[in-house]
Amino acid sequence: MKLAERVSHMSGGGSDGWEIYYRARALRAQGEAVVNLTIGEHDVRTDPAILDAMHASARAGNTGYTIGAGKPELRRAIAERVAARTGVPTGPENVVVTPGGQAALFAAHMVTLDAGARGLYCDPYYATYPATIRATGAIDVAVPTRPEVGFQPKPAAIDARAEGARTLLINTPNNPTGAVYSRATLDGIAEVVRDRDLWLISDEVYDTQIWAGDHITPRALPGMAERTLVVGSLSKSHAMTGSRIGWLVAPEEVVTAVSDLATNTTYGIPGFIMDAGLNALSLGAGFEADIGQPFRRRRQIALDTFARSNKFRLVPSGGGMFVMLDVRATGLSGIGFAERLIEAERIAVMPGESFGTAAAGHIRIAMTVADEAFAEALARLLAFAEAQTVAA
Amino acid sequence: MKLAERVSHMSGGGSDGWEIYYRARALRAQGEAVVNLTIGEHDVRTDPAILDAMHASARAGNTGYTIGAGKPELRRAIAERVAARTGVPTGPENVVVTPGGQAALFAAHMVTLDAGARGLYCDPYYATYPATIRATGAIDVAVPTRPEVGFQPKPAAIDARAEGARTLLINTPNNPTGAVYSRATLDGIAEVVRDRDLWLISDEVYDTQIWAGDHITPRALPGMAERTLVVGSLSKSHAMTGSRIGWLVAPEEVVTAVSDLATNTTYGIPGFIMDAGLNALSLGAGFEADIGQPFRRRRQIALDTFARSNKFRLVPSGGGMFVMLDVRATGLSGIGFAERLIEAERIAVMPGESFGTAAAGHIRIAMTVADEAFAEALARLLAFAEAQTVAA
Repeated sequence: MKLAERVSHMSGGGSDGWEIYYRARALRAQGEAVVNLTIGEHDVRTDPAILDAMHASARAGNTGYTIGAGKPELRRAIAERVAARTGVPTGPENVVVTPGGQAALFAAHMVTLDAGARGLYCDPYYATYPATIRATGAIDVAVPTRPEVGFQPKPAAIDARAEGARTLLINTPNNPTGAVYSRATLDGIAEVVRDRDLWLISDEVYDTQIWAGDHITPRALPGMAERTLVVGSLSKSHAMTGSRIGWLVAPEEVVTAVSDLATNTTYGIPGFIMDAGLNALSLGAGFEADIGQPFRRRRQIALDTFARSNKFRLVPSGGGMFVMLDVRATGLSGIGFAERLIEAERIAVMPGESFGTAAAGHIRIAMTVADEAFAEALARLLAFAEAQTVAA
Repeated sequence: MKLAERVSHMSGGGSDGWEIYYRARALRAQGEAVVNLTIGEHDVRTDPAILDAMHASARAGNTGYTIGAGKPELRRAIAERVAARTGVPTGPENVVVTPGGQAALFAAHMVTLDAGARGLYCDPYYATYPATIRATGAIDVAVPTRPEVGFQPKPAAIDARAEGARTLLINTPNNPTGAVYSRATLDGIAEVVRDRDLWLISDEVYDTQIWAGDHITPRALPGMAERTLVVGSLSKSHAMTGSRIGWLVAPEEVVTAVSDLATNTTYGIPGFIMDAGLNALSLGAGFEADIGQPFRRRRQIALDTFARSNKFRLVPSGGGMFVMLDVRATGLSGIGFAERLIEAERIAVMPGESFGTAAAGHIRIAMTVADEAFAEALARLLAFAEAQTVAA
């Protein structure tokens, strides 16, 4: 029996670095100690207070259908938070709650991209981006960025690929690079987006985890609120990855379209999870800072470690859970380096090639193990890298 | 700014009977008593034991990412249940867990229908069907069924529309009609599906609520397991509508495709909800019978009520939460009847026209209020209908 064509287009566009992840799992299953720096997930679980709020809501009877754009109270809480953080006037009518940030990403592309249109995104990219665009029936087009400029996208590179495009997807703070887009970068992006009459889909799920510089949302730039769809989530900010609760902040017509689409795709989000989300947001900025604090500390550990080297440098990193290391001085690819590293040192990292072609010769390091173990692993990683250059 | 074309195709295909539902809500808001027989949701909430299991799982730390086809234990439990109920050999590799039955419906069409292909479904239909097919970029094609044969689909009607089709969607027990498809109906459907080399998508979410006859899954018919995708859910069987947990039972290649698609659309289901689902399934057939019992009793109330009339007859009903009444003897459309009924009697029902064109001149009655109130409402509804024929 023949499946739909889109099925064959569903795997990621980057080379598959997940062998390293599976190798780490296999080694662990054999009883070996492996430091796993592959996956972007907190080393803490969701706070019990949030889970208790969820349970209280469920036991109070919030267990029925909840179609539509989400609970009014939750939409209002998200709108107020966005308005306070960004200064952009935002009402509940600009918010649609989704079962996670990925669902928001998919819905954003579904309501803006026609089959056969081009959807742009920046390389290196979060693993799901190309296939998310292709799943809508559109054509995914990567805009390369360059390590020499810290992987900040250049307007000319976007413009050169904009013919026939309807959307541009960006991500700041960035996964995998850790880059926080500068005002100059975002001004340049906004200009191309306006000139080319594109929708801008801005994935800002790491926006509470800023370690250097400022997070700027492109929605706050002139003429951009009417054409920008911001993907948000409680996954990273509140360590709620498994609860699948996120949102899209967008013009009202987009919110209506996403809400209508949801009737045919997911049919609402559990009411008790929306109440858990309301509770999470009520915990305030201090809670969010606490969730981010370990990554702030470990980024400093990474900066201090690689400051000792004159051969290996980190990509300038301003936010999120990852740092990216340029390993080209070893003469190895990111994949080659990662493969040797796990065999020699039992440290698992993601090859840059897993995230497209622009980060070839790099590795992505997730800052998701305890500080001491992280420091020790990075020291071994650096020594290993230095030894490769001697061998090379 | 221009949205994708599919946005304009997202509303349902039937005439919009939801005015009745909104009118009922508005009347209630004004303090009026309205008997609401519109929505297909239990008048009980999710059982506390299931919610406690969910909470225990969440507090035990099942709050992280869960990508893939679902927890192995849950896939196994679902597979064993399906094998036991249907006799069809079914393993965990045939099961992919989804965030609800609607998500399974959408995913089933996404992996089988190419843009521009035809997706068939039977009229009358559950409200989301046409737009779910259109959301994939395919063309939705209704196969009419006839009240004279209890809305059982006829093979010739399917075959007449099968040119260019890749899928056929059926639903037994049926919403809105309450029909349970007979073996003869399903044998005929299976023959066309095999001859035309279609995928059969079988929505069986009411399969634990059978009041007359037997539920037969078409997956159990000769040569059908390899081309049938069965949509299941805990919503109806376990009163878990708001928890958004369902599944697709299908050939392994379909399961893999749906699992890959989920990476780009929903990115997994909360682990604590999967554990709630495991707990729900462990409660056994007795629990499921208890959840269905009120609908069994109320169907009998409906049969007894309309047995007193020689003008108004129910569509032969074998399962689920609804009965359908033929009101053509009043000379009114379903919409006209429902509009007059809510104004005169403060009873809200759905017009048959909300579910396509085949059930015009009918109304759908949800059996979702307590027995005594239900009996009293039906008696008033019948008296109202009889009075319309005198007036006509």
